[in-house]
Amino acid sequence: MAGAGGGGGGGDELKLLGSLASPFALRVKLALSFKGLSYEYIAEDLQSKSNLLLSSNPVHKKVPVLIHNGKPICESQIIVQYIEEAFKSTGPSLLPADPYERAIARFWAAYVDDKLLASWLQLTRAKTPEERTEGLKQTLVAAENLEAAFKEISEGKPFFGGDSVGYLEVTLGGLVAWVHAAKKLDGTSLFDGARTPLLNAWVERLGALEAAKAVLPDVDRLVEFAKRWQPQATATAASNN
Amino acid sequence: MAGAGGGGGGGDELKLLGSLASPFALRVKLALSFKGLSYEYIAEDLQSKSNLLLSSNPVHKKVPVLIHNGKPICESQIIVQYIEEAFKSTGPSLLPADPYERAIARFWAAYVDDKLLASWLQLTRAKTPEERTEGLKQTLVAAENLEAAFKEISEGKPFFGGDSVGYLEVTLGGLVAWVHAAKKLDGTSLFDGARTPLLNAWVERLGALEAAKAVLPDVDRLVEFAKRWQPQATATAASNN
Repeated sequence: MAGAGGGGGGGDELKLLGSLASPFALRVKLALSFKGLSYEYIAEDLQSKSNLLLSSNPVHKKVPVLIHNGKPICESQIIVQYIEEAFKSTGPSLLPADPYERAIARFWAAYVDDKLLASWLQLTRAKTPEERTEGLKQTLVAAENLEAAFKEISEGKPFFGGDSVGYLEVTLGGLVAWVHAAKKLDGTSLFDGARTPLLNAWVERLGALEAAKAVLPDVDRLVEFAKRWQPQATATAASNN
Repeated sequence: MAGAGGGGGGGDELKLLGSLASPFALRVKLALSFKGLSYEYIAEDLQSKSNLLLSSNPVHKKVPVLIHNGKPICESQIIVQYIEEAFKSTGPSLLPADPYERAIARFWAAYVDDKLLASWLQLTRAKTPEERTEGLKQTLVAAENLEAAFKEISEGKPFFGGDSVGYLEVTLGGLVAWVHAAKKLDGTSLFDGARTPLLNAWVERLGALEAAKAVLPDVDRLVEFAKRWQPQATATAASNN
């Protein structure tokens, strides 16, 4: 239960419907953790979805769903913006105050979903060597574009958000656990010291934050999950946003 | 040139790079028109993109791009939110003040792109009768879901935004010209009086607004465009957002 106000003047009840492997649910956990908001976490079994999930997100039937005082909010990026707007005065601002900087943050957040994540999933689902090569190529291009964006946006500071975490820490941060899991699974590096040194260091920096450590899933559990469910695992994770 | 302030205290220079057939560029035109902001319109030839477009949107190389005092903003929904935030005190608010209502508006705006538009494009690009049947089925489901959303959000008022236009008038409004063009082209009705009576009336109501009439492209020109370029036309329109 969140004690901090801004949304409803105290007494806010926050419930998060999520699942261990969902990078989208992790975004919401990161946002809530960075904001210092407490909430009840409800782990969904995506093979057998609860009535609460089905009634809270009847259109997509997917996690994450944030339920704030009984009202459901769906879609990870929309939830994160909701958290920022409903709890403006609580914790750090996840979006910059300047409209242009906000637009830039939203642009790269959309890029993470539309390009980086899309091509990474294409890579992990590839059935032929050709598909794998193409998926890998697109993933590397997307990672390199994000590296350039990080350089420009952060201006030498530790985070996309500057000296503290921001919208892209949450959006891209949702992928961090899978970045580590992929390395263990098949040696794939989304970011590395040679091609994307800034983002490689950023992954470590983000993971070292107490607020991130509190919510990042155990990498070995993700690896186990992936081995058990692959290729269904990536498909399921991808279809939940 | 926009005289109205809020963004930079007057003297704002707004340029919009667009193209006739792009529903995404039309969104930005609608937003600027509803806000009463003046701007210079630059029509791009998508077969031969200008250096200004390529340098303003080097990542996606697509219209629309809004250039505000020399700074480019890309991606239609991000541009519309930027316009709202940079020109808050100018014209009507395109997003509700309440964070939950904003989240609902953003949810359905995302639905327009991810489901309605995606399945409509699948329909128009269908190569086999089976693909056409499936595309049509998905499109009708999406239109009916939006009809239900309109009923709930508008609460009997004329617009998604209530008594005046809002974010969904802009987002879904970008498709209005193609709704009419599709009828002329092959008799396809995205909305009709039987299945989606509220949205069918909404299309007419939106099109009757002076601010919309000022920017909606001539339907016959769209029909001509589609006949000349199809199937490239739909692919090009779809790849520009």
